[in-house]
Amino acid sequence: MEDIRNFFLKGYIDYRPNLVVDCAIFGYDGEQLLVLLVKDKIVTKWCLPGGYIRKDESLEQAAARVTADRTGIANLFLQQFKTFGDVGRNCNKGSWDEDKLAELIGVKIDNDNWLSGETASVGYYAVTDMLNAQPSTDFLSSECKWFPVTEVPSLGFDHDEMFREALLAMRMHLYHYPIGKALLQQKFTLKEIRFLYEALSGKKLNATNFPIKLQSLGLLTKLEEKKSIGGHRSPTYYKFNSETYEKALDEGLVLV
Amino acid sequence: MEDIRNFFLKGYIDYRPNLVVDCAIFGYDGEQLLVLLVKDKIVTKWCLPGGYIRKDESLEQAAARVTADRTGIANLFLQQFKTFGDVGRNCNKGSWDEDKLAELIGVKIDNDNWLSGETASVGYYAVTDMLNAQPSTDFLSSECKWFPVTEVPSLGFDHDEMFREALLAMRMHLYHYPIGKALLQQKFTLKEIRFLYEALSGKKLNATNFPIKLQSLGLLTKLEEKKSIGGHRSPTYYKFNSETYEKALDEGLVLV
Repeated sequence: MEDIRNFFLKGYIDYRPNLVVDCAIFGYDGEQLLVLLVKDKIVTKWCLPGGYIRKDESLEQAAARVTADRTGIANLFLQQFKTFGDVGRNCNKGSWDEDKLAELIGVKIDNDNWLSGETASVGYYAVTDMLNAQPSTDFLSSECKWFPVTEVPSLGFDHDEMFREALLAMRMHLYHYPIGKALLQQKFTLKEIRFLYEALSGKKLNATNFPIKLQSLGLLTKLEEKKSIGGHRSPTYYKFNSETYEKALDEGLVLV
Repeated sequence: MEDIRNFFLKGYIDYRPNLVVDCAIFGYDGEQLLVLLVKDKIVTKWCLPGGYIRKDESLEQAAARVTADRTGIANLFLQQFKTFGDVGRNCNKGSWDEDKLAELIGVKIDNDNWLSGETASVGYYAVTDMLNAQPSTDFLSSECKWFPVTEVPSLGFDHDEMFREALLAMRMHLYHYPIGKALLQQKFTLKEIRFLYEALSGKKLNATNFPIKLQSLGLLTKLEEKKSIGGHRSPTYYKFNSETYEKALDEGLVLV
């Protein structure tokens, strides 16, 4: 566990200045789409989790570290979506709890501090199923929890815009990348995958056409096994075709 | 015109450190897709045009300034696509002409120089018709010209990857944003707009289905006027429907 005072006063030794990553981590609980938010000790509002980039890390590695630290899961599906760099975006005085900061650090942070310069943020989004995720705080944060995407509170800094753009980007990527694999059990019914895509896209999908489209892309493999849901109905299980799935991740597809 | 020595020695007064924008400016000449490249005085290979961000500018404003300076056209369709921040990406010694730099600056640039730190680059792409563009150099560059996207030479730093990602992103956005307006004359035939989309997407499009799809989205308005191309054929002119076009830019669409 890093020390907050050390981070503010000596962080420039390990981290790059002027650039951070922030991550919209989307989770699916089988019914709805949620996003993971953190409450920092020194920030008055909820925020997307993020962090500075170590000097020996790429942006992607920093985002992978942040998302793994917050969820306990390594190798989440991670996609950069936009960088935010408006003048003064990180200096939003209303977002900082100045008294709390002074109390924790013991000294006043001045304009020469390595954290005081104009700082841009590279936004990533990740998707995960919530069952395996264990939200965790770090040395800077006091709370970390899931919010339904339809009930996200007003966020600190420019994170309202960031969250909105993350959701938009993920919803555009849905048409081009198969991002469902991390969010479903290994075998699933056509109804289950349609419910997932409805939660991700925020749209009702056609119960007949959507599975046909998915199957025409070769993304699904039909299994022998059927799901027992009582009565006379027993929908067939499917799984993702790993080969087609990986190829689509590399080359893109068009799912409409 | 800025002075190169002043920029290297005093640039930190006007510009943010550690972050630049680089821009893939795509042009269309009625037949093929091209990209604008610059040859910097102190870089041995061709590069995408770019620049540091002034302290009073947003990232978007910096990209708009760079694209306007290079093409002579303000307000190009501009879209951020990815930020590049691998460790050492800007310190590629092979890309710099060290002797030329020393000659131009008059002193050796050391590790304390404001340009020496790890620098990430925010990538933007722009699209323009080539007829109205006038490629221009700046104080750092000696050449600025168009290359067909199929004949781009090996680029400096990580610009090979940047160019590839810009093209990929533009081609994904084609399905979601109407980006053709800046690339066609005000009135055009269905064949002309199909040729444009073929150049942008790098794919052959169905001559019958593509115009039907465009029209079903309400993007086009049919004009009374016909194009005279000799013989008995005289295809109808169309123009973009401004209202639908602007709405689609705001809200996105799905063009497949």
